[in-house]
Amino acid sequence: MVGNKQLIAGHISQRYDAELKGIIEQVLRMGYLASAQVEKALQAFIQVDIDLAQQVIAEDQAINRMELQIDEQCIEILARRQPAASDLRAVVAVMKAIKDLERIGDQAKRIARAAMKLAENETRLTIHHNEFELIGQHVVTMLQHTLSAFQELDAEKAYGAALEDKAIDQDYEAILRQNMTYMMEDPRNISRVVEMTWVARAIERIGDHARNVCEYTIYLVKGRDVRHQADDQLEAIAKSPR
Amino acid sequence: MVGNKQLIAGHISQRYDAELKGIIEQVLRMGYLASAQVEKALQAFIQVDIDLAQQVIAEDQAINRMELQIDEQCIEILARRQPAASDLRAVVAVMKAIKDLERIGDQAKRIARAAMKLAENETRLTIHHNEFELIGQHVVTMLQHTLSAFQELDAEKAYGAALEDKAIDQDYEAILRQNMTYMMEDPRNISRVVEMTWVARAIERIGDHARNVCEYTIYLVKGRDVRHQADDQLEAIAKSPR
Repeated sequence: MVGNKQLIAGHISQRYDAELKGIIEQVLRMGYLASAQVEKALQAFIQVDIDLAQQVIAEDQAINRMELQIDEQCIEILARRQPAASDLRAVVAVMKAIKDLERIGDQAKRIARAAMKLAENETRLTIHHNEFELIGQHVVTMLQHTLSAFQELDAEKAYGAALEDKAIDQDYEAILRQNMTYMMEDPRNISRVVEMTWVARAIERIGDHARNVCEYTIYLVKGRDVRHQADDQLEAIAKSPR
Repeated sequence: MVGNKQLIAGHISQRYDAELKGIIEQVLRMGYLASAQVEKALQAFIQVDIDLAQQVIAEDQAINRMELQIDEQCIEILARRQPAASDLRAVVAVMKAIKDLERIGDQAKRIARAAMKLAENETRLTIHHNEFELIGQHVVTMLQHTLSAFQELDAEKAYGAALEDKAIDQDYEAILRQNMTYMMEDPRNISRVVEMTWVARAIERIGDHARNVCEYTIYLVKGRDVRHQADDQLEAIAKSPR
């Protein structure tokens, strides 16, 4: 699954190579599952597909289990192998990243639940769908770039993916403003529009979690903690030689 | 500050005692700061106090810095001391707990921002304040119990604090239902009520993060990962002898 044999060699010493690569593969599998959950949840929401929404809700358990398993393996490596330097950084980055991936899964479940609630209403507001398709495309693309940056241990790519969060924030603000108008125009829309606002919010949160994963990727590769930093500093670190 | 000399001795071996206790004290300081931020943000929101809201927003940086500092020290301990067993668990629990404390700080900032937005409107809905005072009391009390369970490394107390999240969830659901009614009654309320809904949501999230900290406390003390478990299992683990 992971085609980063050469790339990884520069960052992770030979000694724990197999073990750490195994864990990184599992993180990727977890990430792709979370990303698929987001895609399915958005589809269930836009097409008001109850079966698909139920699938997403049921599947969330699998992501939770993966988080616990990977976490346990990381703690075991810390205890048994006592890794140092870049190996230690890889383990720490993984432990942090899986928390965000698990929360991406939670948000997908939240979107699926909103889809089910909306399905309870016989009518639906089709006017919103274009905007949700747009923000949905943005977030799914960002997740793909985030995971491929992690897979290739590419800090510059991770920086690029982190920036994609801005477009999602803008889409989100636009949806909020739009929703406010819909509610004011016709109070009968309120309960449905409130539900749609939660969905927009869940997507916006997924963007934030993806950005976190990008920051942990930069940390893993560059050895510098880039949380709570401005974008230009993030860029300088991501593009710095090591 | 920490009065848990004897309690801690049972869980953390002598070797890293001072170092680990120093870190736990910092986590507590960070936790009490986050908790104070929540209290101030709620006060700013209820009393529409712009100065206080601005204070909360400015102070959030301090919590972010504490997170990075504690995290760095934990990684240093992992690299230099290569802790095992309960020491390793303490470090891992701390690294996870500070993420939740940082997010509690973020939510306080969010509440403060909503307080500032509401202050821009000359009129205000006083009808909501009783409910917000109630949920506010619940969340502040839960934070106090959560931090004192962590301070005393008391798994049973942590379990008790974790359960307090339920009352907050109920308060939150009640506010959501109420808000929906206010909006339908008079569409001119909508933009203000939407802001209040975000505040309620932020408080609900703070309860979730506090519960996470309780779960990490139980993990630290009992050595069992209790995430994604039902309450009765949580209880059994928290009350088990070791």
